[in-house]
Amino acid sequence: VFELVCDRCGARHDASHYRLHCDRCGGLLDIEYDVAPTVEFRVLKDFGGLRRYAPMLPIGNAARLVSLGEGDTPVVSLPAVGAALGLGRLSAKLECCNPTGAFKDRGSAVEVTVLRELGIEAVADIAGGNTGVSLACYCARAGIRFIGFAYEDPRHPQLQAIAGTGAEMHRIEGNREACAAAIADFCRDTGVLNLRYSRNAYFIEGQKTFAYEILEQLDALPDHVVVPVGNGSLLLGSWRGFRELLQDGRAATMPRLHAAQSAAFQPLVAALHGTHWRAEPRADTLAVGLRASEPPRLDALVSACRESGGQAVAVSDNAVAHWQRRLAELEGLLVEPTAAAPLAAAEILARRGDIGSDEHVLVALTGSYKQPTSPRS
Amino acid sequence: VFELVCDRCGARHDASHYRLHCDRCGGLLDIEYDVAPTVEFRVLKDFGGLRRYAPMLPIGNAARLVSLGEGDTPVVSLPAVGAALGLGRLSAKLECCNPTGAFKDRGSAVEVTVLRELGIEAVADIAGGNTGVSLACYCARAGIRFIGFAYEDPRHPQLQAIAGTGAEMHRIEGNREACAAAIADFCRDTGVLNLRYSRNAYFIEGQKTFAYEILEQLDALPDHVVVPVGNGSLLLGSWRGFRELLQDGRAATMPRLHAAQSAAFQPLVAALHGTHWRAEPRADTLAVGLRASEPPRLDALVSACRESGGQAVAVSDNAVAHWQRRLAELEGLLVEPTAAAPLAAAEILARRGDIGSDEHVLVALTGSYKQPTSPRS
Repeated sequence: VFELVCDRCGARHDASHYRLHCDRCGGLLDIEYDVAPTVEFRVLKDFGGLRRYAPMLPIGNAARLVSLGEGDTPVVSLPAVGAALGLGRLSAKLECCNPTGAFKDRGSAVEVTVLRELGIEAVADIAGGNTGVSLACYCARAGIRFIGFAYEDPRHPQLQAIAGTGAEMHRIEGNREACAAAIADFCRDTGVLNLRYSRNAYFIEGQKTFAYEILEQLDALPDHVVVPVGNGSLLLGSWRGFRELLQDGRAATMPRLHAAQSAAFQPLVAALHGTHWRAEPRADTLAVGLRASEPPRLDALVSACRESGGQAVAVSDNAVAHWQRRLAELEGLLVEPTAAAPLAAAEILARRGDIGSDEHVLVALTGSYKQPTSPRS
Repeated sequence: VFELVCDRCGARHDASHYRLHCDRCGGLLDIEYDVAPTVEFRVLKDFGGLRRYAPMLPIGNAARLVSLGEGDTPVVSLPAVGAALGLGRLSAKLECCNPTGAFKDRGSAVEVTVLRELGIEAVADIAGGNTGVSLACYCARAGIRFIGFAYEDPRHPQLQAIAGTGAEMHRIEGNREACAAAIADFCRDTGVLNLRYSRNAYFIEGQKTFAYEILEQLDALPDHVVVPVGNGSLLLGSWRGFRELLQDGRAATMPRLHAAQSAAFQPLVAALHGTHWRAEPRADTLAVGLRASEPPRLDALVSACRESGGQAVAVSDNAVAHWQRRLAELEGLLVEPTAAAPLAAAEILARRGDIGSDEHVLVALTGSYKQPTSPRS
């Protein structure tokens, strides 16, 4: 019912094994479905959560989704923060209410379901941040061994949380590249699957459900959607989701999709404006989810912004910290710094006139304010 | 549409101001509604979340609920932990997916809505733990000043999170009693409302929605529901909720409601068995949500267990830590220790034969595994 299609040369591949790249040109793969447009075929109305959209996910059997209750996250209005931003209609979708506290769970649920349907018993990947926690939890749920490689201090709370799921952890001296090399060696020697979640299409497909839910939760689609962009799976998922809703005739127009990046990491801002950008040697940001200098699907991110009429904006750590604090004080929502980046971006977009003060803006609050702890600590 | 009724002498009071005790005998108050039984009058079908059950909540206007998107938490099956416990049908309701990461948000939403409807502008209460975080967030959302008193180290992450909402914090030297005395003094001097959330009925009413949702989410009610009990608002809320569902004719029987307490804090276990119990001078437990030696509504807690056919069970810290770890390893769910107490209790109840191996058991996973951090830290 679905195939993997090269995003560069268009070559088609069957989905019977885990594939990251095009056999012909090495490009990354997208997923295409053979499901007739319209809600009749694309939505399973008796289901909630991600299962509801199973015909448009790369999984064979909706009932067998590896689920921890992800999705169906609330949308709330942010009247006080909106007023502070000069926006009359500001809403937030609380992705921080997902079971591991971050939007990643949509991607993990789909990705790990694919792994299980393909009969894969063990995977290795870099394990840090919200994605590592989420993937480790879903692998535990599915009975798949998760082998995590990390170069940070193992006392880091998210690494402890990952270890708490029973994952096997390997400490690597050095940086992210050293870690990737160690994983490649390990997988070659052991035959364990090298997951490289940021390159595959499955994770992004899970993020599509963010767009589907927005349509079903609101009377009308927002004019603007602002999301944080590191590797950009939520932006790409939103774009794919809203395009499908247009095809189905369920939506008449696409919201403008805007990317919030960090002043320290702005590859998409540069690509969108055709300017040169390189990360500083010791670049860093408070908004750890935005730490990505080479997103694998940069061209697609540019298309998502450009074709939807959206922008990419770099925000400062000061602005992130400011809006994180104001969100807590004015609305009672405690989120991690990365999740406040879209508010900082909305401030710039409103000031520039890219967002009108009477337009409806929806931001994704992508991660909860809490730091994970381990059941073993 | 509702009155405050003394749980001891039955005297009725109107709800036009914030009242903790019976004017006549000093007993605690429950809420009674003048809403005809049956779903037609008691459920607002066009709403989700807590608003759906507004006719059975002590609020005047469903649309004006102070909400952060609480409720509608997922129910997931726990097949692997069930097998480890010898239970063929074990489910969990993920209260940890509420916006502040704990079941408390149901209570806070209702409580703070009442405060706003009564025109209250500032409240003071002891501020620690998940309840403090939740109340502070909902007060921020409602524009009500929250003044927190704490005797713990102010670097405690939950106190930092509370401060992060802009709450005014007072550090008290001494223990819980010293804190309560300081609050009483402060409120007398300033006219600020002394909230004492653990004594009022509003918080418990919010917890009723836990029961309503279970009925609407499952094809049939579970045979057993196991919840952690400190002051016991979730047990009391469940009991009230399931009783109303019986009155409505929507449920034919009530699940047996079981309480998970700690070996170090077991006032309900003792009261249920008519034995004497007193907390040790330095009693403590890993399951911090169970640290309550004198729950204000102990008699009602006894009734909830007894009349539903349930038990109260004291669990050890070792068992709590064990099931917290096994839940992470076997199902990928990372929860705080308190949330694992119902699994430790279910183990005892299954071993004793109080729960049959083919009966459906639902546990509340009441709090997320994460430690809050402050936007200011």
